[in-house]
Amino acid sequence: MSSQSDHPTLLIPGPIEFDDAVLNSMSHYSESHVGPAFVSVFGEVLSGLRKLFQSTDPAAQPFVISGSGTLGWDIVGANLIEKGEAALVLGTGYFSDGFANALRTYGADVTELKAPVGSRPQLPDIEAALKAKQYKLLTVTHVDTSTGVLSELRSLSELVHRVSPDTLVIVDGVCSVACEEIAFDDWKLDGVVTASQKAIGVPAGLSISFFSGRALRAVENRKTPPAAYYASIQNWLPIMRNYEAKKPSYFATPSPQLVHALHTSLGQILSVPLAERFAKHKAASDKIKAAITSLGLKQVASKPDDQAHAMTAIYLPESIQIAQILPSLGKKNVVFAGGIHKEIATKYIRFGHMGVSILEPERGHVERALKALEESLAEFGYQKA
Amino acid sequence: MSSQSDHPTLLIPGPIEFDDAVLNSMSHYSESHVGPAFVSVFGEVLSGLRKLFQSTDPAAQPFVISGSGTLGWDIVGANLIEKGEAALVLGTGYFSDGFANALRTYGADVTELKAPVGSRPQLPDIEAALKAKQYKLLTVTHVDTSTGVLSELRSLSELVHRVSPDTLVIVDGVCSVACEEIAFDDWKLDGVVTASQKAIGVPAGLSISFFSGRALRAVENRKTPPAAYYASIQNWLPIMRNYEAKKPSYFATPSPQLVHALHTSLGQILSVPLAERFAKHKAASDKIKAAITSLGLKQVASKPDDQAHAMTAIYLPESIQIAQILPSLGKKNVVFAGGIHKEIATKYIRFGHMGVSILEPERGHVERALKALEESLAEFGYQKA
Repeated sequence: MSSQSDHPTLLIPGPIEFDDAVLNSMSHYSESHVGPAFVSVFGEVLSGLRKLFQSTDPAAQPFVISGSGTLGWDIVGANLIEKGEAALVLGTGYFSDGFANALRTYGADVTELKAPVGSRPQLPDIEAALKAKQYKLLTVTHVDTSTGVLSELRSLSELVHRVSPDTLVIVDGVCSVACEEIAFDDWKLDGVVTASQKAIGVPAGLSISFFSGRALRAVENRKTPPAAYYASIQNWLPIMRNYEAKKPSYFATPSPQLVHALHTSLGQILSVPLAERFAKHKAASDKIKAAITSLGLKQVASKPDDQAHAMTAIYLPESIQIAQILPSLGKKNVVFAGGIHKEIATKYIRFGHMGVSILEPERGHVERALKALEESLAEFGYQKA
Repeated sequence: MSSQSDHPTLLIPGPIEFDDAVLNSMSHYSESHVGPAFVSVFGEVLSGLRKLFQSTDPAAQPFVISGSGTLGWDIVGANLIEKGEAALVLGTGYFSDGFANALRTYGADVTELKAPVGSRPQLPDIEAALKAKQYKLLTVTHVDTSTGVLSELRSLSELVHRVSPDTLVIVDGVCSVACEEIAFDDWKLDGVVTASQKAIGVPAGLSISFFSGRALRAVENRKTPPAAYYASIQNWLPIMRNYEAKKPSYFATPSPQLVHALHTSLGQILSVPLAERFAKHKAASDKIKAAITSLGLKQVASKPDDQAHAMTAIYLPESIQIAQILPSLGKKNVVFAGGIHKEIATKYIRFGHMGVSILEPERGHVERALKALEESLAEFGYQKA
């Protein structure tokens, strides 16, 4: 059980509730960012990320850089695509729109293949798009945190490699890494960008990314210089390689405390087979989604195959407003998030169920949240139809 | 006194030793980044930064963004200058070179006015440069962490406003904010970019910046769109304004734990008159520099007027190598940094003396460091000439 001071249970789709040891690592005493103790910890973090991404390809490379998850979009935009080159963005909601905007900032010629709210672009449409135009890269938001829609990566990547083999397959894994399976090498992915504060279970502040040898060659072979300085793969690549080889080096000062917390969390994550971790998230998700359905509520992600396993986006009954339900849940010490997809933002709420809230069921988070939701709905007069 | 577990005393020019309460804030339980409790803390941080920068101009704006100090260069490069526009970079060492490279990444036409190692460009030369060409902005590295050279901002800014009034005055304050005086409004500065892990006394991971109304108008009046997404002032400005107005809003997830630590540290900093804080750093610096001189050692920053007050870059005796002295100091639990200025990197070491190491003299950091240095020099046969 947690020894943290009493506080409302945070069940939004990130940041999540944290493990005590991870939070304690945040208070690690100050160390030199180029001293042997910290360099060793950073090196182990990078090696650990290879395992988390199920990658053994030495040409692939993990990056850990101070920043929000959003910085990952800049890393892709500033390094993997050049002005005027084409990108195909699979549109699943707010976060795929964000990725598209970030790529446009760097001059990419972006085509958004948008699915209706609550679903994802289908393979035949993606195939047609890939055949109609040559894309430098394709982006897919593995779980769009705005809708709880899960995209299927394996068959998508197979399709891209078959139909448009030169197109890089780039995944926004902010809300999927460490809760949905990602077999980086087997699925022939070229990049996954993510962040610390979701299923990885570390406070926000780290942009974490993983790129294939093919992606790094694309950076090397750019016709124009990288379009950013802090987000430049060229600037960070030697640093990450040195850290992993336990050699000190410097481009910008990392955050030792956040890296320690990531070290602690990765140690916990990798102490159990990943398949078990993913299965636990799926089992809990199935239960939660069944409970939501039995309350008579609908999910934003309409088809079971498209539903993420670490969050649920739930349509409210028409008679109940977000401004009613969230404060009511708050009084019961349960924090959910409001909607964020612009077409339906006022109509739904989001329940994040990942990390310790799932892996330490003795905390009782899920049961408490479902009970609070049922009670709050009843308070506002909701009855199952 | 500190209750942190035993560890070597970190006396590099950042990260520094941290206050216990600040470190404890790093372990704050998880909160929603858009919940009222955290929004209020973030808002107070922004208001506190106005005081730290001695600014009451409502048109000026503080920004706190997850990232390293280096991100500040991208914020300047991607927002305040457009492709082909001219920037005058005052060259003081490794960090002004870095700023120049970051600006070039964004297409700036950069002129570096370089001073000899250990000094800073002189006002008459700067005046001549400003008269020879129209610059969109001038950058000055207030304290170049590579050399310990302090630049004088007030007379520099007066000069720029007199000779080239349309040129924005941009300060790299990574190693100066909270240990050297900066009167943002009075000195008519347009931007200061800094980071959390130096005299502000918070673990690394936050890019902190402060821009004038004039600088923000320059962003508004760009002919081309901002050249970055994550580092875009346009994307962050409404968010920072909302946080300060205690209204939730979202562009990218901030790091609640780092922001809490900054809140704690700013509370401590602002509880004492800033003039007193700066005077204490100066008094300690004077003592340290006198001790270095009495050991017969020379500083990289040769003239007293050019010497920073929170770090000292010290030339080693010719007979002693960095690879000897740093491990020897380490055995005495004192961590100094090696050289980083490429022309002299192997010849000097750096001693950071800021934050709790100065403000809590009962920790005995400075005395211990000076004693360790004297002993280590003696171990390698050094005798004052």
